[in-house]
Parts: sequence; structure tokens; C-alpha cells
Amino acid sequence: MEEAQKAMEHVKISTHTRTTTTTNATTEPTPVVSISALTEHKEGDVVSIYGFISALRAVGTNKVFIVLRQGATTVQAILAGQTAASAAPDTEAPKKEQKELRSRTVLTRRNIQDIKTVPQETYVRVEGRLSECARPVKSCTVSTKEIQVDQIEIVSLAEALPFQLKDVSWTEEERRTNTTLPTVALSKRLDHRYIDLRATETRSIFKVYSSTLHFFREYLSREFTEIRTPKIIEGASEGGADVFTIAYFKETASLSQSPQIYKQMAIIGGLEKVFEIGPCFRAENSNTGRHLTEFTGVDLEMELKDLSYIDLAKEIYQMLRYVILQVQEHRQEELRAIAAITGVDNQTVLTEDLVAIPFHEGIDLLRGAGRSCSYSEDIGTEDERELGRLVREKYQTDLFALVGYPISARPFYTSLCPEDANYTQSFDFIMKGEEISSGAERIHQKEVLVERIRAKGIDLATIQDYIDAFSFGVPRHGGCGIGLERVVKLLTATGDIHKCSMFPRDPSRLRP
Amino acid sequence: MEEAQKAMEHVKISTHTRTTTTTNATTEPTPVVSISALTEHKEGDVVSIYGFISALRAVGTNKVFIVLRQGATTVQAILAGQTAASAAPDTEAPKKEQKELRSRTVLTRRNIQDIKTVPQETYVRVEGRLSECARPVKSCTVSTKEIQVDQIEIVSLAEALPFQLKDVSWTEEERRTNTTLPTVALSKRLDHRYIDLRATETRSIFKVYSSTLHFFREYLSREFTEIRTPKIIEGASEGGADVFTIAYFKETASLSQSPQIYKQMAIIGGLEKVFEIGPCFRAENSNTGRHLTEFTGVDLEMELKDLSYIDLAKEIYQMLRYVILQVQEHRQEELRAIAAITGVDNQTVLTEDLVAIPFHEGIDLLRGAGRSCSYSEDIGTEDERELGRLVREKYQTDLFALVGYPISARPFYTSLCPEDANYTQSFDFIMKGEEISSGAERIHQKEVLVERIRAKGIDLATIQDYIDAFSFGVPRHGGCGIGLERVVKLLTATGDIHKCSMFPRDPSRLRP
Repeated sequence: MEEAQKAMEHVKISTHTRTTTTTNATTEPTPVVSISALTEHKEGDVVSIYGFISALRAVGTNKVFIVLRQGATTVQAILAGQTAASAAPDTEAPKKEQKELRSRTVLTRRNIQDIKTVPQETYVRVEGRLSECARPVKSCTVSTKEIQVDQIEIVSLAEALPFQLKDVSWTEEERRTNTTLPTVALSKRLDHRYIDLRATETRSIFKVYSSTLHFFREYLSREFTEIRTPKIIEGASEGGADVFTIAYFKETASLSQSPQIYKQMAIIGGLEKVFEIGPCFRAENSNTGRHLTEFTGVDLEMELKDLSYIDLAKEIYQMLRYVILQVQEHRQEELRAIAAITGVDNQTVLTEDLVAIPFHEGIDLLRGAGRSCSYSEDIGTEDERELGRLVREKYQTDLFALVGYPISARPFYTSLCPEDANYTQSFDFIMKGEEISSGAERIHQKEVLVERIRAKGIDLATIQDYIDAFSFGVPRHGGCGIGLERVVKLLTATGDIHKCSMFPRDPSRLRP
Repeated sequence: MEEAQKAMEHVKISTHTRTTTTTNATTEPTPVVSISALTEHKEGDVVSIYGFISALRAVGTNKVFIVLRQGATTVQAILAGQTAASAAPDTEAPKKEQKELRSRTVLTRRNIQDIKTVPQETYVRVEGRLSECARPVKSCTVSTKEIQVDQIEIVSLAEALPFQLKDVSWTEEERRTNTTLPTVALSKRLDHRYIDLRATETRSIFKVYSSTLHFFREYLSREFTEIRTPKIIEGASEGGADVFTIAYFKETASLSQSPQIYKQMAIIGGLEKVFEIGPCFRAENSNTGRHLTEFTGVDLEMELKDLSYIDLAKEIYQMLRYVILQVQEHRQEELRAIAAITGVDNQTVLTEDLVAIPFHEGIDLLRGAGRSCSYSEDIGTEDERELGRLVREKYQTDLFALVGYPISARPFYTSLCPEDANYTQSFDFIMKGEEISSGAERIHQKEVLVERIRAKGIDLATIQDYIDAFSFGVPRHGGCGIGLERVVKLLTATGDIHKCSMFPRDPSRLRP
């Protein structure tokens, strides 16, 4: 291994490119510390911190207060200009030393006038001595310690921002007491998402998003095999409309609307329980706060053995409940920060066991509330919202399943109720009045499947591989698909799904 | 909650659809037990097992041996036909009772002749009494217990298979001793992947695949925020060729080749460390065992603060090492089963610390071995393979990084070496002689970026949003992309990437 060692040394020498610049080249580089770890360091420690300049304020001619930000954490840094009195005898006398601000410029106490001109959101490295605050700095997350700055290295200068981060961060209370505070249109925020991500609300949403993904996987990976299925497919995923077409070499292909047929094939392949979390594409010309042309599907499928589709819905409910409770526990701070800004309570109330409402009972409830719905057709968005309200009132839950949808409302692969073939062994989960998931037992008998495909008027040839798969021994099975961005939208109560997709896509948005 | 209870009861009544059929309707349904849990049950227990008929063999006229399979587990089930002597006085006398085999047909000891005709791979429910085996059943994973069958319910009959599972499961040793064993072309297996998934090799590969995904995420989610970025984009991901175009309403869009520009925007957005695991699309007309048009990218990006790109490569190596070691530990059985079939040792040998070979040293090694490579150009597939062999010999590792690639070999966003702008602060990870990952420090200064984009002849307008993002304070950052299917292919030593993508896509394969 001596040779390997030698190679490594070589690399170290030939490629050393650290940007750390210390005024005294003979000293060791100062340790890089994260803002959140500052409280573990003691007064007098010299530290190096990388971050964005969140705020910069000059006090008098000789002092600058900086709020340095790293993710959601902030600390105050103070730079006191060098005066004749404070100048140590062995240093140069203070003088105005004009510096052009650019990358790698290093500013010290002698450049106090230049530092005052550093734009907000510039990314810097600050080096200085840690000191205890005389009074807690309430505006920073680290309120008991601050940095007495020796030097500021400009890593990357910011130009004027397209909008101010504070204007997307006022709390609802602040807006109530001051109605003249500026607002920023969502489209403008989305156009500059790389800036918007630095704002508390957006950052918090994507921390919730990341945790939601995490807890879905944590729960599923206990018993399910994670799979990945193709997004480029020959026919349409479900033989339906609303697909994007792709030029695929000399053929035309389309983008998968859901992994439905592939996760069923995996079950037929004997994998017993599978899940996939991946993109789904819908070429639907809907411009609403509920639709995206590209969203993330949490899809699962499993052998049912002796379970009914209601048992399946119960299992899915326990997963959703687990994910929601875990996110609410681990992202308390973020959820609270979002609620302060939106002014909307985002707590999700859940019962211990699934509340499953038979479809006809749901229609009864809606009719009782004066809405005219049919027992044999799907319910609309407004009905869903109203049903959410009614169920919340009656059963004290923000999440329930409406079960046994009429046949007209479900895709061809949904199994029919044995007692009444006008209804299906299917369910939707409705969270805070909005559908987040559709699930069902699937048809596992080839002859029934073919009959249903024909009844729906779908060309058998477009899904021949799928049909063929049902010839070789098929377990009874079922599953569901969950719209991740919808779950995050409802968990955070942020009202528009565009807020919950980092770079959302809709019929009129392809950028950035 | 009484109301909720009532609703639930209602559901239970109106939707009860269990398929369990017991001969005596008044008894409780027998418990459903998984094959792997059978050893926890005692002799005489009556159990219900769902599974595929892996093998069926009649012995004499009155006895049938069945191997029942659930995933990778198997158990023997024995059905002894009812004879006059064995018929209990209270049951009907045995008689030939011809049954049409179809879904939900229930066969008992009286239907022994019919049972002999049940096709292999039919999915059934078997009910019977657990008994100790007289001699261990070596051919089953549960070798000490067997089922004395009372009834077999046909859940789904299998037709004749396109190929026999045993013909894709012979071990290399068996093939060596019997050279006339049939083989099955990979294309045929892929055409019927839903069958092929039931074979030991394929099933094992996707268990390794699932675990590889799992350990990447486990490692990354400790410090990185998981993000999801759009696959439908306006320009080409990296301003390059080889993109699939999509009809996007009235516009033309393309499929993302990598999340590169989006993960960089997330870093500019202050998320510090991000990762994404998702599909990447390349419209490259390559028909090899190394290329897919759709593959899974494990992408990460992070602020570098004071780290060099070599430090970054070291961090990535530790992640790769963790994932490989964990998979080797948790999927020992599967890896061994694969090796028995392929006859190729699939152990991956790793050093504790990264072996980083400077690019010019790599070229020296190759030239020393008689290959003619240039110091200023990328190395080819064959050179990579040879280098893998040379490095394995010299440093005893199957995974190393080649660092500091020439500028011609890297995309525009790669940062240049400060000492020599003909080289970049980049690296490839080479595993068993094949590239699995490319990474680098990225350019974070806008003016340098624009210059590089121009130098590569890319139209600035096609990536304007990306360029704009560099105007608002950018951390030094870097990251890498890892090809998941390549890692799985090399981990399993299965030789062809098509084997490691459940439903692979290449220029000539869009199905199933």
C-alpha cells in the first residue's frame, strides 16, 4: 500500500485548491464550523464560517453588523473598523483602501467602507473570534454567541435580487398589522426558485417534502421491495388519453402516467410486495392549484392472499398515518414556521383506525347537505371538499377512505364487487377534502381483464404485453398510488401544489 | 366514534370478498402462513399457504408431490388420493369426479387425477396439516416440514410457459457436467420479464438492486436533503446532444439527461447538501451491455466550503464503500446464488481509503502496458477495463478514482485546475474496470461559466435560467452522478446491464 500512499500524496500536492486564505500564510487554516455547532465552541475560539449575508447594517461610520445565514440557521457577525487608537503598532496605519468587490476578494477591518457595500445574499467566508453576546440577539437562531470578524472573503457576489426574501417571509400577523407590506406573485417566485428556496416558507416546505419521502420509504422498505420501472413506454400506461409523446429513434413512444402495469407485472413475477417512488406524467391541460403535468407517485402493489380490498385500505391507512405523524413530529419547527407565514393551521387530525365510508353513504351525506350527486358516477372536486368537511365533523378525522366506487369512475384493471358488478373493489383516500390516493383490488383473471378492456373501448394491442402477463399464474393483488406533492401541500396547508414541487411543471410552465 | 364503528361494520358486511373457501362453512378460516414462517408452527397445525406451483410430480396413481414457492422460499406439499380404505365412513365414497380447472376451482383428495394435470406456475392456495418430514427435503428451503394437503384452490391457472424457469437456473457447475442443457436467450427472458422475475438469478439481482437503493439512501439521508427535479425540461439538460424530444402542448420539450442544473440550483438555493435518485434519459444509439436509454441516476451535490475536489472524491468513496459492503453483507445469499449460476466470482475488493490516481499517472500506467493513450483526451472503454486490471494489481482494489481529467473530456460546468486550465477538478470512479460515476467541483463564478459555455459552442439562451442562477451568491460546490444499474451489474458480476434493469430500454427495446 506504500504505492497507494504515494499516489495519494501526489494528488494532495498537485490538486490542492482550498480557497481558505489566511492573512498569515504560516498559520494553520482556521477550522470551518457550522452555525448550528457554534454553541459548542467557547469564547475566544477563532472560527471560519461559510454562509449567505442575510442582512448587513452599518452603525455609525466604523461598525457593521452582519447576519450570516446557513440554511435555516443564522448568527450575528460584527466588524469594527480599525481606528488609529485600535491599530496595533505593528500593523499598517488605517487608511482608505478601495477594493474592487469580486470573488476571492478578502476584506479586513481596514476595508470597513467596502464592507458596507457588500450586497445582501452574497456568499462569503467569515473568519473571526467567537464572543458571548451582551444581550441575546433575538433575530438570530444563535442568540447567545456572535463573531468578532477579522476578515470576510467574498466567495460569490450577489447582484440585485428579483425580489426581497423578507417580502415572502412576513408572518400573517405582521401582514395583518401592516397591510402595506409588499407581496410577491407566486409565478415570480417560481421563475427564480433558486432564490425562493432561501426563504423560510419554501425551505420549510422542501424539508417537509424530504421527510415525507423518507418516512414513506422507511415504512415501505420493511416489507416491500423497491423497484424502478420505465418512464418511456410503448403504449399509454393505462391505454388512456393525456399522454405526452416522445420521438424514440424511429418510433413514437410515450411518457408513463403511472407504474401501474409494471408494478402488477412485478407482482406476477413473484415479488409479493413492491413499491416505487418516481415521476408520473399527465398531459392534462389543467391549470389549477391541484394539478401538475409531472408529479411524484408513491406507488405500491401487493399480493392480497386472503385480504379483502378493505383490509388493503386499512393497511394503507396505517402507512399514511405513520408518515403524517412522523413528519408532524420531526418537522414541527418547519410546519410552525409555515403556519406563521400562511396564517393557516396545518395540523392533520387522524383517527387511530381507518374510517371507511361506503360510496353510497358518502353520496347520502352529500345529498343530506344539499348537493346533487349521483350514486353511479364519480364525485367532483367541490363534492370532495364538502365531503371532507362533513366527515371531519362526523368522525373527527382529516383523512378517510371512500370505498366501493361505481364502475364508471375507475380504470379497466379495477376488480368488480362480487355482489354488484356496477361497483368496484376500490377506494380513494381523501385528506382535508382532497384526493391524495386511489387504490383497489385489481382484476387477476385474464378473461375478466380482457372483457373489461373491451368494455372500456381500449385497443387490446396497445397493452398486449400486460394482458399476456396474466396467462402464467397470477396472485390476487391490489395496491394504490399516492400523489406526493398533494400530500405535502395538505400537510403544510400551503394551498397551491406549485409551492410543493421544487421546479413545477404545468401546461404553461416549463422553466426553470 | 360509534358512528365510525357503524360505518366500518357496514363496509365489512357489504364488501366482504375473501376468497378463502373452506369445505365446512361453519369453521373459522384457517390461518394464512408464509412458507418462511412454517418452521415456527408445530406438527398437526392446519395452515393455508398461497404460492406458485414450482414443481408437481405424481408418484404411482394415488400420490402427488408439489413444491410450493413463495418468493425464494419453497416447501413440499403432499396429496394422497382418497382410497376406499382411507375414506372415512361419513364422507362420500371416492369416485372419479372430473373438474374443469379454472380460477376458484377447489380440489381435494377426491380429485387426485385432476391435480396431476395442474400446470406448473399456477398460483394456488393450499390448505393442509403440517407434518415433520421423514427425511430432509433437500430441494426445498423448508426441509424439515411438509404439508399434508386437504385441498388446493386454483387462484389462477398458468398456460404453457414461454421458457422453463429451470433452464435459466442451472448452475455453472451443472452446465459444465451436462453441456446439452438448454439455454434461453436474454432477449426472450426480457420479453417475458414477468416470468423471468420468478427465476433465482433475476429475483436475486432485483433484491440486490433494492438493497443498493436502500443503502445509498440510508447513507445520504443522514446529512443530505432528498429532492426531486423535473424530467421534462425546456432545453437539453447540459446543452448537449442525445436528448429525446417531447411534444409538450404547443411547445417542444426534452427529457432530462441528468438533474445536474437542478441540483446546482438547489445548492444555490441554500440547501447545502442535496441528493436525488431518479431516471435519466439518453437518446444515444448505443447497443451494448453498458448502455441503457433510461437508467437510474444517484445524484448528489454539496457545498464544498473549504474542501478540495479530492476531499469530495474521498467522501463519495466512503459512501460507495459503505453501500457495497452493506449490500455484500445483507445480500450474501443472493450474491452467492447469482455466482453459482453465472460462474463468476462477484466479490468486490475495496481498500479502506480512496485510491486516487492522477489522470497522467493513469495514462502512464496504460502506456506502460503498451496502450497508446493521450494525456489530453478521455480514455476509452477498453482502456478503462485495462486500467481497472492494472490498478487492481497495483493497489488491490476494485474501485478507485481517476482524478483531474483533461478539459476536452468534461462538460462545460466543470471547474478548471488553478495550476493548469487544460485540466479539470474532476474524477471518475472506476469499478471493476468500468466507470460508475463522474464527479467534479463545479464552476461557481458566473463569468467563468459563461466563458466555458461559449468555448463549448453551446447557445447561452438554451440554459439562460441556469446562468441567471449564478448571479445571486453561489457557494463553491461539487458533486457526482452514479449509474445505479451499472453498480448493480458490477456488484453482481452479471455482465449485461439489461439484466439489472427490470424493464430495460435501449434503442431497439421499448417493451414490455
